[in-house]
Amino acid sequence: MLKVKKFGGSSVRDKERIFNVARRCVEDYRAGDDVIVVLSAMGDSTDGLLEKAREINPDAKKRELDMLLATGEQVSVALMAMAIDSLGVPCISLNAFQVAMHTTSTYQNARFKRIDAERITHELDNRKIVIVTGFQGINKYDDLTTLGRGGSDTTAVAIAAALHADECEIFTDVDGVYTADPRVCPSARKLKEITYDEMLEMATLGAKVLHNRSVELAKKYGVDLVVRSSLNRNEGTVVKEEVKVERMLISGVTSDKSAARIALIGLKNEPGIAFKIFNLLSKKNINVDIIVQSIGRDDTKDISFTVNQSNLKEAMELLEENKTKLTAQRVEAQEGVAKVSIVGAGMQTNAGVAAGMFEALYGVGVNIRMISTSDIRITVLVDEDKADKAVAALHDKFIPEE
Amino acid sequence: MLKVKKFGGSSVRDKERIFNVARRCVEDYRAGDDVIVVLSAMGDSTDGLLEKAREINPDAKKRELDMLLATGEQVSVALMAMAIDSLGVPCISLNAFQVAMHTTSTYQNARFKRIDAERITHELDNRKIVIVTGFQGINKYDDLTTLGRGGSDTTAVAIAAALHADECEIFTDVDGVYTADPRVCPSARKLKEITYDEMLEMATLGAKVLHNRSVELAKKYGVDLVVRSSLNRNEGTVVKEEVKVERMLISGVTSDKSAARIALIGLKNEPGIAFKIFNLLSKKNINVDIIVQSIGRDDTKDISFTVNQSNLKEAMELLEENKTKLTAQRVEAQEGVAKVSIVGAGMQTNAGVAAGMFEALYGVGVNIRMISTSDIRITVLVDEDKADKAVAALHDKFIPEE
Repeated sequence: MLKVKKFGGSSVRDKERIFNVARRCVEDYRAGDDVIVVLSAMGDSTDGLLEKAREINPDAKKRELDMLLATGEQVSVALMAMAIDSLGVPCISLNAFQVAMHTTSTYQNARFKRIDAERITHELDNRKIVIVTGFQGINKYDDLTTLGRGGSDTTAVAIAAALHADECEIFTDVDGVYTADPRVCPSARKLKEITYDEMLEMATLGAKVLHNRSVELAKKYGVDLVVRSSLNRNEGTVVKEEVKVERMLISGVTSDKSAARIALIGLKNEPGIAFKIFNLLSKKNINVDIIVQSIGRDDTKDISFTVNQSNLKEAMELLEENKTKLTAQRVEAQEGVAKVSIVGAGMQTNAGVAAGMFEALYGVGVNIRMISTSDIRITVLVDEDKADKAVAALHDKFIPEE
Repeated sequence: MLKVKKFGGSSVRDKERIFNVARRCVEDYRAGDDVIVVLSAMGDSTDGLLEKAREINPDAKKRELDMLLATGEQVSVALMAMAIDSLGVPCISLNAFQVAMHTTSTYQNARFKRIDAERITHELDNRKIVIVTGFQGINKYDDLTTLGRGGSDTTAVAIAAALHADECEIFTDVDGVYTADPRVCPSARKLKEITYDEMLEMATLGAKVLHNRSVELAKKYGVDLVVRSSLNRNEGTVVKEEVKVERMLISGVTSDKSAARIALIGLKNEPGIAFKIFNLLSKKNINVDIIVQSIGRDDTKDISFTVNQSNLKEAMELLEENKTKLTAQRVEAQEGVAKVSIVGAGMQTNAGVAAGMFEALYGVGVNIRMISTSDIRITVLVDEDKADKAVAALHDKFIPEE
C-alpha cells in the first residue's frame, strides 16, 4: 500500500515528537507499505523566521519571505531523515526543488499546478521512506513559493493524487472530525466518515481540522483523506466522496463566534445598490458572509450581512464614508453574535430539517437574527452568549447517540 | 565593473551587521557597478543546526547534514534581500538550485565543477544586486552538498571565475594579510599585495585569513582576490599571480603552535620503512607535516615528523602497537613545540635567506629542532615558548619598516 502521511508543526516541534513521528512511519514501512511523509516547519519556527524578517524590513517582498520561510520545512525533513535513519530504516529527505513541486507564481499564496512523480517514485522503488517538505513549491521562474494557510495538508493531498496513493493521512492534535466541538458539547462524538462537501462546509464554519483548499483538492482528485491524531492510535475520520455507512441526517453542528453583523437601513429600492455595497467591501478585501435583504418601510429596503469581527471597524468606516452614495439612512453594527450551523448531506432529501432546527432553538429560548442556507447546510445568526446552548440543543436533536 | 563581494557569518550575525553589508553593496551599485554578494550562514547558526542534528542522531548521514546546513545560507540571503530592498535598490536572493552550482557528489566536502552563469547574468542585466548562498552546491543526484571549511570563499571565487568578474572581495574581521600576527609582533604591517603561492603557504601555516581551496581556485582561474575588513574602509590586501610593487624578500612570518613532534628511533636501514610508517598514519587520516630522516647509530636510522597536537595520542598508540613491525627501537613524542615560517616568493632568487633566518634565531637564543623548506618557504620547529620571540626576531630581520 502507498501511504502519504502528513504531520504538522506541533507534531515535530522537538526531539521526542520527531521520534514519535519517525516510529509511526517505520511501523508502516516494516509492515510492507511504501511511505511518503510530508512535514511542516517545527513548532513555531515559521513565526521565528517571520519575526526576523519584520525586524529587517516590515514590508519585505513576498518572494523573499517565501525564500526565507521555505527553510523551515527543509530543517524538519532533514532532522526527520536523521531520526528515521537512526531507527535503521533507509530514507531520504526532499525539498520542493528536488521533488519538482510546480505551483502558480503567486508568492505566499501559491497553488499546485503539477508534481513530478519521478524522483519520489525512484526513491520508493529503492525501498526508502521519502520525507517531503510541505507548504512549499517552485514557480515558473524557478523561485520558491509557499502555499498559505494549511499548505502542508495541500502538499500531502497533491502528492497522494500525483502518485495515486492508497491513503492520505492528515495527523493533527485531535482524534478526527467531531459532530460538534467536544468542549462545547460533551455528547459530541467522532465521525467515522464524512463527505468532502460536508467537510468543506464544516471547515468554512469554524471546525479547524482541515483547510478548505486541501479538501477541495482531495475532492477534485478523489483522494480519500484520513484525519487522525499524531498522539494516539485512534482510528480517525475518513473524508471521501460517498459515505457508505448508514447515513445520518446531520453530520455536525458548528459555531463561529468571530462574527459581527452590519445593517444598512433605509436604502433606496433601486437596482445596483447591493452591487455597490459589496463591491466597495471586496475592494478592501473584507469578506462578507451571510447576506439578508428585506423590504423596509416607505418603499425602502434594508440589507444586513456578517463580517469577521476583525474587519468590523474598517467596514463600518468605509460604509459611513459612503453612506450617501449608497443611499443608506443608517448604518448599524452589532458585535456579540455567532453563527451556528448544522451540516449534512442528508438534509438534501429531507424537507423537515430547517423546521426541526428552528424548533430546537425555540425550545431553549434562542432568538434567530439571520438565516442562510446551502444544499447541505443551514446557518443561523444568534447572540454570542447563546451559541453554546444552541449547539448543544441542535446536537441533541439531530445527532443520535451511539 | 562586475564585483563579487563575500561576507562571512560574523558579518551578517544581526540586524545591524546585515544593514552594514547592505549599505556597502548599495554604494557600489549606485556607483554603477554590477554587484554579486555571497553570504555565509548568520553568526553561529550553523553550529545551532549541527547541535540539533547531534541531538537527533550523532551519526547522521552527511547527505542529510548538508540538506540541513544549506538552510543557514538561505536564511542569510533572504534577509539580506529584504535589507537591500528597504534601502530602495532592486535585488534578488538565489540558492544553489537557482544558480545551478554544480559540485562533486561528496557531501560535507564537495568541490565545484561548474557554475551556470545564466540566471545570475539575467538578474544582473535587470540591474539587480544578486545575493547568493555561499558554502553550498548541488550534485548530480540533484542533492544539496556543502563545501567544507572556507566554503563561502570558494563560492565567491567560483562565481567570479564563471562570470569573469573584475574583482572578488573577501570581507573578514581583519584588515587584510599581515606580515605577521599583529598580536605577536607589534611591528607587523599589512601587505598591499601577495602572490597566490605565498598566500597558500601562509594559509597552510596558520594565517587564518583565506582558506587554501579558495586561493587554489583563484590561482587556477586567475581571479584577483581582495581581502579586507567588513568593519572599516581600509584598503585590504590583493592576492594575485604576480606582485607588481617592488618585491620584498619575505612577505610574512607565521607561527603555528598546534604542532607536536614524534620520533621513531633506531629503525632498520632498509627500503620501505618510511612508506610503512606514513601509510599506517594516512589510513587513520592523521596528517603528517615536516619529516626529517637522519642516520642513527649502528647502521640504523631515525625518522621524526610533526603532527597536529589533536592527533598526537592516536598516532602514538598506533605507532606503539606497530613498533616491532616498523623495526623501531623507541617511539618518542614531544609536545610544546611550534612551527615558525618565513614565506616569500623573493627567496627563490636569493640564496642567503636560510642563513639569515638561522642567524636571526641564533641571535635571540632560539634552538632549531627541525627544518623544512619549499621554494618559497622555510619552516623551523622550535620550542613553543620561544615561538613569539622567534617571530618577532624574523620579522625585524626580514620585513623592512614602512
